[in-house]
Amino acid sequence: MTGPGEPDGERLGRVFLGRVTEPGDEVAGRWVREFGVREVVRRLRCGGTALPGVSPTRWAGLVARAGRAAPERDLAEARAVDARFVCPGDGEWPGQLDDLGDARPLGLWVRGRPSLRMWALRSVAVVGARACTAYGSHVAATLAAALAEHGWVVVSGGAYGIDGAAHRGALAARGATVAVLACGVDQPYPRGHAALIGRIAHQGLVVGELPPGDHPTPSRFILRNRVIAALTRGTVVVEAARRSGSLATARAAQRLGRFTMGVPGPVTSALSAGVHDLLRGEATLVTDAPEVIELVGGIGDLAPAHRGPVLPRDLLHPDARCVLAALPGDRAAPAEEIALGARTTPEDAIARLYELRALGYVERHGDGWKLTRQAVISVRDGRHPR
Amino acid sequence: MTGPGEPDGERLGRVFLGRVTEPGDEVAGRWVREFGVREVVRRLRCGGTALPGVSPTRWAGLVARAGRAAPERDLAEARAVDARFVCPGDGEWPGQLDDLGDARPLGLWVRGRPSLRMWALRSVAVVGARACTAYGSHVAATLAAALAEHGWVVVSGGAYGIDGAAHRGALAARGATVAVLACGVDQPYPRGHAALIGRIAHQGLVVGELPPGDHPTPSRFILRNRVIAALTRGTVVVEAARRSGSLATARAAQRLGRFTMGVPGPVTSALSAGVHDLLRGEATLVTDAPEVIELVGGIGDLAPAHRGPVLPRDLLHPDARCVLAALPGDRAAPAEEIALGARTTPEDAIARLYELRALGYVERHGDGWKLTRQAVISVRDGRHPR
Repeated sequence: MTGPGEPDGERLGRVFLGRVTEPGDEVAGRWVREFGVREVVRRLRCGGTALPGVSPTRWAGLVARAGRAAPERDLAEARAVDARFVCPGDGEWPGQLDDLGDARPLGLWVRGRPSLRMWALRSVAVVGARACTAYGSHVAATLAAALAEHGWVVVSGGAYGIDGAAHRGALAARGATVAVLACGVDQPYPRGHAALIGRIAHQGLVVGELPPGDHPTPSRFILRNRVIAALTRGTVVVEAARRSGSLATARAAQRLGRFTMGVPGPVTSALSAGVHDLLRGEATLVTDAPEVIELVGGIGDLAPAHRGPVLPRDLLHPDARCVLAALPGDRAAPAEEIALGARTTPEDAIARLYELRALGYVERHGDGWKLTRQAVISVRDGRHPR
Repeated sequence: MTGPGEPDGERLGRVFLGRVTEPGDEVAGRWVREFGVREVVRRLRCGGTALPGVSPTRWAGLVARAGRAAPERDLAEARAVDARFVCPGDGEWPGQLDDLGDARPLGLWVRGRPSLRMWALRSVAVVGARACTAYGSHVAATLAAALAEHGWVVVSGGAYGIDGAAHRGALAARGATVAVLACGVDQPYPRGHAALIGRIAHQGLVVGELPPGDHPTPSRFILRNRVIAALTRGTVVVEAARRSGSLATARAAQRLGRFTMGVPGPVTSALSAGVHDLLRGEATLVTDAPEVIELVGGIGDLAPAHRGPVLPRDLLHPDARCVLAALPGDRAAPAEEIALGARTTPEDAIARLYELRALGYVERHGDGWKLTRQAVISVRDGRHPR
């Protein structure tokens, strides 16, 4: 590690490169893979011979941007909005993003308490048209609420229409939701969703590839979609016209081997035409949350009681262990009661409960949470001492 | 052949057996296959030793029914409503019904001018809920009209709701439609569709397995559905609740290797739930007529101009040859003009035009009809002299 002023440490280098390249730049991704972050940063800063795969003009442009990059300032600006930078090698890095190959994000800016890695483990994307119908909005909210009630994390893009309805549905169910933005996580976009995105950052996670202050562009929306697709186990499209951007998310999910699902609608609605096209291809028709979970959850989720913890209790984050210890052994309890027992806020308790859900320790039960049968057994048998 | 009073001629025997057994009786079907119609009739009439596969009680019941059967009277009653009896071996028998095996109808009562065999060659079933929504009714009518405009014959069950909308849509497009009833073809059922069924008999075909005077029963509706499924190249379900009878038609179509299709609707509508279940299985989602035709028509129908006549002109029915001769060689003409040229009624002209369509001679063109390119070439080259 070099001094804080030198952006050639691995982490600082990734922040630096995030300023110089655009999201999903596969050429830059190949450089990082072949030469390592530090070497790519060094070459961009010294402005010498171009790295392979770009024209001299493009190289000059990158070098110019490198001259203006200030990764320390980016990190400081992020800290000011309680955002952290999560990158490959970090404990919180969601490994499934590696499926993006050279288009893998250099890192993600994250706002919110929960562990992105843990939440992503049991997440589903619910995306769709901005200018949705009342039907689409109703379906997205209901679906997201039911997914959240079943212990699933609802990921979407924070946009107007279906995205917003999905986030709101999950929040209304006191559930977990992640907004993946196409701009800096300090930039609430769209403006009209500033309050919603603030609420998501408070109760869930707001995530983005772009450094603080950056604004969305059409191509950034498209490239953001690949992150939503890669992060989740599957993508559900609720209303999309024939050329909708949410179809790009679905196609990305398909390419990545994730489940692609669509909620049908009236064939007389242009806003369902894109979904129907998808359903005439490889996507699976879903009409409610159980059908989504049946697909993305695998056999274990049809009988959650039969899944045991997948991580020994003593390897849990200390805060998660506190929340786990606050769960009553014989009944379900609301998040507020668990938070009280764990001496934390309900938001933090919910963040940890979803992590524990991902690890097989707890499950949602109506409005509350309870230990899984296997978690109770493992405590009773003392197999995983606290 | 024996005298007209003796029901042991092949055709008369089938009419006789249609009085004695219920539609789709596979035991009776096996008797016919193993012993022949004449022998089965003889055994039922003499009431001796039971044929294999039935209890003595059931055999006694069949023998009692045989005593009351009067096939000559059935044929006379049919003639009174201009119905004919079409059975295996007849030129008009649709060979695809043989796929039903021992459940193949003994014969079909048919009202209407067109050849059932010809029309069935290019037919699609459009079925669904009786108590449909305005959405379902609109979709069924629009789909049927567009199928008819593309030269396809719309087959349905004559019931209220989706069936009625499908028939009406086809008729409104001056197209071809077939109602397959679960009762005698002289019994307009449901009563409220008496005028519609009359119109179908006038412009299209009304078909049924049951002899004149017979009424529908719940099991007859179910068994009727297998005829709709077997007669057509595929079945489209438009709106069906989870336990709807139209799903039985779809399942029958699937078992018979026909295409099974469903039109999706709002997931909030109970009347689309059955269709969505179907679409989550083997059925194909369709949203309009071109998608249906793409599936059932095969590659040829994507480029109808490239399909030539499949039957030499001199083997055509004389009435069909008259209609064909009345088609202008260089443009499309409405059915009325063609009827005038062929010295027949528009209804008869339409009946023949759909037969000629099935044989590759003509195609629909907007509101009118024109010769296919191959038909024009075959006339020019004198390959098929008139």
